[in-house]
Amino acid sequence: MTDSNFFAAHEDTLKGALDAIGSRGFWSAYPEVPSGRVYGETARADGQAAWKARLGKPFELDQGYAIGTVSDESSPWGIETGIEYPRCDLNQVLGASRCAMDAWKRASVEDRAGVCLEILHRLNKRSFEMAFAVMHTTGQGFMMAFQAGGPHAQDRGLEAVAHAYAAMKACPQSATWSKRVSKTETVTLDKTWRIVPRGIAVTIGCSTFPTWNSYPGIFASLMTGNSVVVKPHPGATLPLALTVEIARDVLAEAGFDRDVVTLVCDSHDAPVAQDLVVHDDVAIVDYTGGNAFGDWVEANATQARVYSEKAGINSVVLDGCDDVRAVTGNLAFSLCLYSGQMCTTPQNIFIPEDGIDTPDGRMSFDDACAAIVKAVDWFLSDPARANEVLGAVQSPATLERQASARTAGGTVLRDGAPVAHEHFPDARLASPLIVQVEEADAALHEQECFGPVVYIVRTASSARSIELAADGAKRKGGLTAALWTRDDALIDTAIDAFTHAGVALSVNLTGQIWVNQSAAFSDYHVSGANPAGNATLCDAAFVADRFRLVATRIPVPAPVEEAAC
Amino acid sequence: MTDSNFFAAHEDTLKGALDAIGSRGFWSAYPEVPSGRVYGETARADGQAAWKARLGKPFELDQGYAIGTVSDESSPWGIETGIEYPRCDLNQVLGASRCAMDAWKRASVEDRAGVCLEILHRLNKRSFEMAFAVMHTTGQGFMMAFQAGGPHAQDRGLEAVAHAYAAMKACPQSATWSKRVSKTETVTLDKTWRIVPRGIAVTIGCSTFPTWNSYPGIFASLMTGNSVVVKPHPGATLPLALTVEIARDVLAEAGFDRDVVTLVCDSHDAPVAQDLVVHDDVAIVDYTGGNAFGDWVEANATQARVYSEKAGINSVVLDGCDDVRAVTGNLAFSLCLYSGQMCTTPQNIFIPEDGIDTPDGRMSFDDACAAIVKAVDWFLSDPARANEVLGAVQSPATLERQASARTAGGTVLRDGAPVAHEHFPDARLASPLIVQVEEADAALHEQECFGPVVYIVRTASSARSIELAADGAKRKGGLTAALWTRDDALIDTAIDAFTHAGVALSVNLTGQIWVNQSAAFSDYHVSGANPAGNATLCDAAFVADRFRLVATRIPVPAPVEEAAC
Repeated sequence: MTDSNFFAAHEDTLKGALDAIGSRGFWSAYPEVPSGRVYGETARADGQAAWKARLGKPFELDQGYAIGTVSDESSPWGIETGIEYPRCDLNQVLGASRCAMDAWKRASVEDRAGVCLEILHRLNKRSFEMAFAVMHTTGQGFMMAFQAGGPHAQDRGLEAVAHAYAAMKACPQSATWSKRVSKTETVTLDKTWRIVPRGIAVTIGCSTFPTWNSYPGIFASLMTGNSVVVKPHPGATLPLALTVEIARDVLAEAGFDRDVVTLVCDSHDAPVAQDLVVHDDVAIVDYTGGNAFGDWVEANATQARVYSEKAGINSVVLDGCDDVRAVTGNLAFSLCLYSGQMCTTPQNIFIPEDGIDTPDGRMSFDDACAAIVKAVDWFLSDPARANEVLGAVQSPATLERQASARTAGGTVLRDGAPVAHEHFPDARLASPLIVQVEEADAALHEQECFGPVVYIVRTASSARSIELAADGAKRKGGLTAALWTRDDALIDTAIDAFTHAGVALSVNLTGQIWVNQSAAFSDYHVSGANPAGNATLCDAAFVADRFRLVATRIPVPAPVEEAAC
Repeated sequence: MTDSNFFAAHEDTLKGALDAIGSRGFWSAYPEVPSGRVYGETARADGQAAWKARLGKPFELDQGYAIGTVSDESSPWGIETGIEYPRCDLNQVLGASRCAMDAWKRASVEDRAGVCLEILHRLNKRSFEMAFAVMHTTGQGFMMAFQAGGPHAQDRGLEAVAHAYAAMKACPQSATWSKRVSKTETVTLDKTWRIVPRGIAVTIGCSTFPTWNSYPGIFASLMTGNSVVVKPHPGATLPLALTVEIARDVLAEAGFDRDVVTLVCDSHDAPVAQDLVVHDDVAIVDYTGGNAFGDWVEANATQARVYSEKAGINSVVLDGCDDVRAVTGNLAFSLCLYSGQMCTTPQNIFIPEDGIDTPDGRMSFDDACAAIVKAVDWFLSDPARANEVLGAVQSPATLERQASARTAGGTVLRDGAPVAHEHFPDARLASPLIVQVEEADAALHEQECFGPVVYIVRTASSARSIELAADGAKRKGGLTAALWTRDDALIDTAIDAFTHAGVALSVNLTGQIWVNQSAAFSDYHVSGANPAGNATLCDAAFVADRFRLVATRIPVPAPVEEAAC
C-alpha cells in the first residue's frame, strides 16, 4: 500500500471534522465560494472545458463488465449532452466488487481513511467540472450546482468519514483481559479485534442532488471496509460517474483494486435498481429518492441494511412577525430556490383565518397571502436573479405535476408561469404556483407535490396550524418546518410538536439563512424519525451498523516464578 | 422527578462502565460470587424464601389490562412451580406503553440513566431470588443461574446503559453556529437538539438465558427514551416478571408512569409474539431465540428495527496441543456446561484424519476421539460436579432431538445417557452424546442440533477443518470457534478465516477459561456478521439507532453597535 501519505496529508482535515461533529458549530473543509482566488484563476474555464470535452461521447471508465451502453441524460437547460455510459452485467460487477473488497477490508482504518480523504480532496479540486455536470443534469443554477454539488457534498462526505472513523476507533484493536478466577489463579487473555465490513454496499442516487445525497453513504461504507456499487439516476449520471472515476484512480494509486468502487448505469426503460437492491450479494443499500420506490426498497431489500432518505411534506407556520417584508422576502427565496425541488423546500404555509400578528396590529389572512405572493413576484422580477435562483426543472413530470395542481382544487393566488432564460432558450423553467386551500382540503395539502407548488392553508388558529403540520409530518413524513411568531409560548409549543414529529424546526429566520439549508457537521438531514426516511445524515447510527468487530482471544502464559535457590 | 438521587448514587458505576467499554479489559460492577460476605449472610436463604413464596400463586404485578391468566412454566428440575401470570390485551398494553413514553422520552439522559442504574442495583440485591427463578425455569445449575441470571446479566444491562449514554452524549444539547455569509454579515443560530425515541420496544425473551440475553435490549431501549414491552418465553417467565416488577417500582418512585415497562405473557398454545412484533405501534424488536422464528421476525417485522440473537453452529478445530489432558479437560467442561444449551457451546469438533500433533508425536484420530470421550466421562464421574455443571434440560424437545441424533447417522462414540440427581429425582437430565461423522455428512454436522449433541468430524487436514468450520458459520451462522494447535501459521489462517466468517475465536484455552464464556464490557456476544444474528451485545450499532436527534434553530440577533457619540 502506498496510501499512507494520503492519510498523513489529510490528517488535519479529519481532525477538524472530528472536532466539528462533536461541537456542531459552523465548520467546513471545502470552500463554498466559486472563486478564482480559492480554486485558481483558470479553474472555472478549465472545469467547463473538461465538462464540455465529455459531451456527445462515451464516458471512458476504466471498468469492465460492459454489455452495452445507456444514454438517458438530457440537460434541463435545454442543451444536448449525449454522453453514453456503459451498461454492465450486474452479476459480473457484484462478483468483481466482492473480490475487490478482500484487500480493502483488511486495510487499516488509516489506510482507508487516507484513500477516502484523497478522493474528497480531488473531488474538491474538480468542483467546477462537477458544477457543470450537476447543473446540466439536475437543472440547478450554477451557484447551487457548484456549492451543493461540490464543496457542500464533499463536506457531507467528510462528515461520514469522520463518523465512521470515530465509530471504528471506539473499540481498541487489542486489549489485555485479566481476571482473578480463584485465590491463587489469574486468567489473562490477549484479545484482538478486527473490523469486518457488512458486504457490498449499493448507493442509489437521485436526480436532484446526485452527489450531496450520495456521498454520505458512499464514504460511510468505504471507510468501514465495504465495497461500493454506485447506481446513479439515469437522468443524473455524470456527477456520480465522475465521482467513481476519481475514486477508482485514487484506489489504484493506493494499491487497491479499482473495483472497490464500481458504476452501474441503467436507463428509464430498463432500470436495474430493483434487481440490484434485493440481490443476495448486496448487504447495504443507501437510497435517496421518491417515497414509492423507497418504501418498496425498505419492505423488500430485507437481506440488506437499508438507509433511506425519501421525501416529506414541509411546513411553514406563519403566526406573526416583526417585519412582514423581511419575513416574506426570506420565505420567497426558500420557495423559489431550485423551483421547489429541494427535499427541504416548504410546501404548506399554514396561516390562521384571523390573520397574523404584527407590530402594526393584526394583518388579515388575505393580506398575509398577498404579501407572500408579492414577495415571490418581486423576487422574480429581476430576470437574472430569477434564472439563477429558480434553476431549471429536472423532470418533465414535475411540470406536469404543477399543471395538475393548478386545476386540482383551491384558489390559485399565483400562477406558476414559465420563465424565459436569456442564455438557455430551451430550458425547462417554472416559477412557484401558489394555491390557497382550507384545512379540510387534506387531499391537496397532505399529498407531497414535489416541485414549484405551494399551498397556503387557512386554519382556525396557529395552535391548529402546528397540530396539522406536525401530525401530517408524523404520518406522511417531513424534513423541515419554519415558524414565524412573536409569541414565545407558541415557539415552545412548536418545538415540542415538531421535535416529536421528527421535524427540524427553524424559528423566525430572516436575512441570509433559509429553512431549506442543511449544514454539514451541524444539521442532521432527515431525522429518520418519521416516514421521510429511516436514517439521518449523519450520525453514529448511519455508520455503526456498516461494520462488525470480531475477536480473537489467546491466553497469555502466567509468568514463570523464579526458582528459589 | 425525584430520581436525580439515583443518578448521583450510581454515577461512579456508570463511569466505570464507560471506561470499561473503551478499554475492554476485565471489569465488572456486580460481584459474581454467591457469597454471604458479599450479598449478606442471609441473602441466599432470603432469596430462596422469596422465590418459594411465589410458587403456586398468581404473580401479583401492579399492571392492568389483564384478560385472563397463563401458567406454562414447569421446572426442568422436576418440581411444581405453578405460578400464574396475567394474560393482557395487547392493544391496551401498547396504548398504555405509548402514553407512559410521553414523560419518559422528555426526561433528561441523566434522569433516565438514574432509573436504569437503580433498577440494575436492585436486581443485583435480588440476585439470589433471581437465581432460583432462573434455575427453576431454564434448568441451569444453581451457580450458573446465579451468575448468568444475576450479576453477569446485570453487567450486560449496564454495558448497554453505558453505550446508550455515550451515544446520546456524542451530540451536544445545544451549540452556537456562526457563519460569515458576506464581508459584512455573519449569521448566528442557536441550535438545540432533543432526543426522540424510536417508539415502543418489544423484547422477546428466550427460555435458556431469559435475563442475560434480554437485559441489553431492555436497557438500551429504556435509556434512549423508548418504552419497553417485555414478552418472556412462556417456559421462562418468572425471571423477566421479577425484572419488570422491580423496574416498575423504580419508575414509580422516580415519578414516572409504571407502564414505561410492561409485561406481556403468553402460553405455548396461544402465543402472541407474532402479533406483537408486527404490530404497527411497535418500533423496535429485540429477539433472542431459535433461528426459524428469528428469521420470520427479521423478514416480517419490517415496520420495526429488529435486533436478533439467534443460534449457530459452533466449531472446535483440534490440530494439536502441548498437553492432551489439559485440553480435553477444558473442552469437556465446555461440552458439559448446561448440557450444551448455551448458544456458545461447541457442536462440531473437527479433527484431521491423520490425528493431532503432540509433544509425543502424532496422536491418531481415534485416540484423539477417545481422549475427548474419556475427558467427558471423567468429568461426569463425580455426580455432584456432574449435576451442578450439566444442569437440567430446559425443554423436552431437546431430549427428543438428542434421541433422534443417536440414530440419525455416524458412529456413536459416547451415548448421551441420562444422569441421576440426588436432590431432584424427577429432573430432566442428560449428558453429551458424541457422534463421529465424516466431512461428507454435511446433513448431520451442518445442522444446528441444540442441546447435548456433539459431532466429531473427520477431515482431510486442519486447513480443511478451518475451511469447513468457517464456511459453515458464514452460511448457517456461528458464534464461537475454538482452536488448539502448536502451529503459529495455522493460528493466523484460523484468525483470518473465522474473523471474516464473523466468529469469535479462542485459541489454546486451558484452565479456568472456556470458549463458551462471553464477558460483558469486553467480549462482543454474537458478531452480527453471519446468520446467527444481526446484532451484537453490545456496541454503538446496538444503541445508536434506537433514538434520533431533532433540532431547533433560532437566530441570535447581531449585537447592537454602540452609538458613537
